[in-house]
Amino acid sequence: MPTISTKARLMPASPIRKLVPYAEAAKKRGIQVIHLNIGQPDIATPVVALDAIRHLDRTVIEYSHSAGFESYRIGLAAYYAQHGITVGPEEIIITNGGSEALLFGMMACFEPGDEVIIPEPYYANYNSFAVAAGVTVVPVRCRIDDGFALPPVSAFEALITPRTKGILICNPGNPTGYLYSKGELETLRSIVSEHDLYLFADEVYREFCYDGATHVSAMTLSGIEANTILVDSVSKRYSMCGVRVGAFITRNKELYAAVLKFAQARLSPPTFGQIASEAALRTPKAYFDSVTAEYVQRRNILVDGLNSIEGVRCPKPKGAFYCVAELPIDDSDVFCQWLLESFSHEGRTVMMAPATGFYADPATGRK
Amino acid sequence: MPTISTKARLMPASPIRKLVPYAEAAKKRGIQVIHLNIGQPDIATPVVALDAIRHLDRTVIEYSHSAGFESYRIGLAAYYAQHGITVGPEEIIITNGGSEALLFGMMACFEPGDEVIIPEPYYANYNSFAVAAGVTVVPVRCRIDDGFALPPVSAFEALITPRTKGILICNPGNPTGYLYSKGELETLRSIVSEHDLYLFADEVYREFCYDGATHVSAMTLSGIEANTILVDSVSKRYSMCGVRVGAFITRNKELYAAVLKFAQARLSPPTFGQIASEAALRTPKAYFDSVTAEYVQRRNILVDGLNSIEGVRCPKPKGAFYCVAELPIDDSDVFCQWLLESFSHEGRTVMMAPATGFYADPATGRK
Repeated sequence: MPTISTKARLMPASPIRKLVPYAEAAKKRGIQVIHLNIGQPDIATPVVALDAIRHLDRTVIEYSHSAGFESYRIGLAAYYAQHGITVGPEEIIITNGGSEALLFGMMACFEPGDEVIIPEPYYANYNSFAVAAGVTVVPVRCRIDDGFALPPVSAFEALITPRTKGILICNPGNPTGYLYSKGELETLRSIVSEHDLYLFADEVYREFCYDGATHVSAMTLSGIEANTILVDSVSKRYSMCGVRVGAFITRNKELYAAVLKFAQARLSPPTFGQIASEAALRTPKAYFDSVTAEYVQRRNILVDGLNSIEGVRCPKPKGAFYCVAELPIDDSDVFCQWLLESFSHEGRTVMMAPATGFYADPATGRK
Repeated sequence: MPTISTKARLMPASPIRKLVPYAEAAKKRGIQVIHLNIGQPDIATPVVALDAIRHLDRTVIEYSHSAGFESYRIGLAAYYAQHGITVGPEEIIITNGGSEALLFGMMACFEPGDEVIIPEPYYANYNSFAVAAGVTVVPVRCRIDDGFALPPVSAFEALITPRTKGILICNPGNPTGYLYSKGELETLRSIVSEHDLYLFADEVYREFCYDGATHVSAMTLSGIEANTILVDSVSKRYSMCGVRVGAFITRNKELYAAVLKFAQARLSPPTFGQIASEAALRTPKAYFDSVTAEYVQRRNILVDGLNSIEGVRCPKPKGAFYCVAELPIDDSDVFCQWLLESFSHEGRTVMMAPATGFYADPATGRK
């Protein structure tokens, strides 16, 4: 029997997956499992997007341009302009979700063995794309004491080696909900500029900023235009994770041309998803106001509730829809399993993602 | 400015792309360009698939299971059973087109530097997935004199090195339209078995077999169940290339688990595409009868016409909807450009794909 590859062996399994059987068993026992473990919003997808699909008038579902519908890229550029980001449709490649933008970007920017610094805790799947590209993730620790703020320049400098080729941030952050300030982005700008690194900015939670805070995009940083890559997705913005439409955006023409070749090899992003995404550009502001109000209310109930428990602390996120809490426990894997296996309150329990999955060294996320 | 990666530099550009400006210029001059250059059928997508999309009753477009809807995989297993292929839903991973199945499969099966033997001429994008996975394509030449039949065992044996880890076939073949016989598949079975190679079988043109010929799937070869990977796609079968739904299928449990980890990293295949694909399983037989009749008629007009020209020869394909012709020319790149730039007949010309794009060494495909 032929063997699987080293990459396949190194590819991490989903950190939630080992809990799934316990959740299923809990449901079989009649326990209602509240899912706090995954970024799958229960918010309704905008009607304008669904209606575009229902009114489909095509008779042949053809490949689109490998970079995506031109009309959608033009619409998307106008959307970015409204958010203070100046990009043209020729700087956008529509991808199969933000995931494909990350994979293509890492393969096009980095050699196997190159290092990418990522503030941790970070989205677990960054590890998977790094393995696929042969890239080494070098975590720089954000501390709960600082509310998961960007570490100081010195912490980055201490990690930079001749193999360091990039920094990857998620802003607002999954899983911390941390929103980087203008000053923190300027700090990143100077590090990226000094060491000529790529800056990957995953900004898929752009719309979800709370308490009057505003989002500052990495695309607004001057002097590092050729270094900066914006990773985007419609999944969370319009609560339509299943359409699988994201974007790889850069002003670096050589890099754009390179990623377009990866995109040509897989022919095109999904046509139906692009139809829904293009229509979703017409989502009324009232939709976002209502979604934001809903998330603020949920955040306050959850985070205030957590912080009212002795021994628990949880910084209040200014963005996204996640939070990371420190609990008076020994092992978050065991605790999350116990919640599903042995705990219930009024017939309900919660499924959470152990923080172990969000650290390069799982030992860090045990509490 | 940071540099792009070696992979990005090696990634081939689409072989058609250099002709696109000439096609656009021809259209601007009022010339009608008949596109014979790409596998984008003009056949209507089955109404049953489009209706499923138009009757969408979901309010939140959620991620699906990373392996795809279970209901779709169950339906797909029943479809394969009708084609003599015995696989269970737990042996199927739904992918973003056949492209992603090839990419994940190559990354999960092969180490960088490993060699994969592919009968040539072959689908140009195999080169791209090989570059992405760091794999070296070793072509084994099929000859127009033999109608592009599988080369003899000795030709494979001459190419096998300690780094050879797989054979990739496309059956029926893009671009030759060649349909492998049971005997040829048995030959492949013995080579694969003797050298413990992976056998990738791209069978996306399964339905398109002509003149009473029947398709023999690599999945029916006994004794190499753990070696065999079926790459499939709904793109051509239902003329819905844009839905981006394919499948990676293997009975090798270790490999399946490995590819599922790649699939989990990118979360899920497209929900709308899966809805259309699941509905398309109910496409009536009359649809395929009519499509097959249409393709046979087109093939006969084209291939008989070509063979009636002095100095031209073109084997009559028994499958798929492509053909490769030998022409009395010096350079197919120049000829295809000339057709767009300088030739027209009654206001029309044709855009073709130069065979240079289908050979590891482009010099081979010049005539």
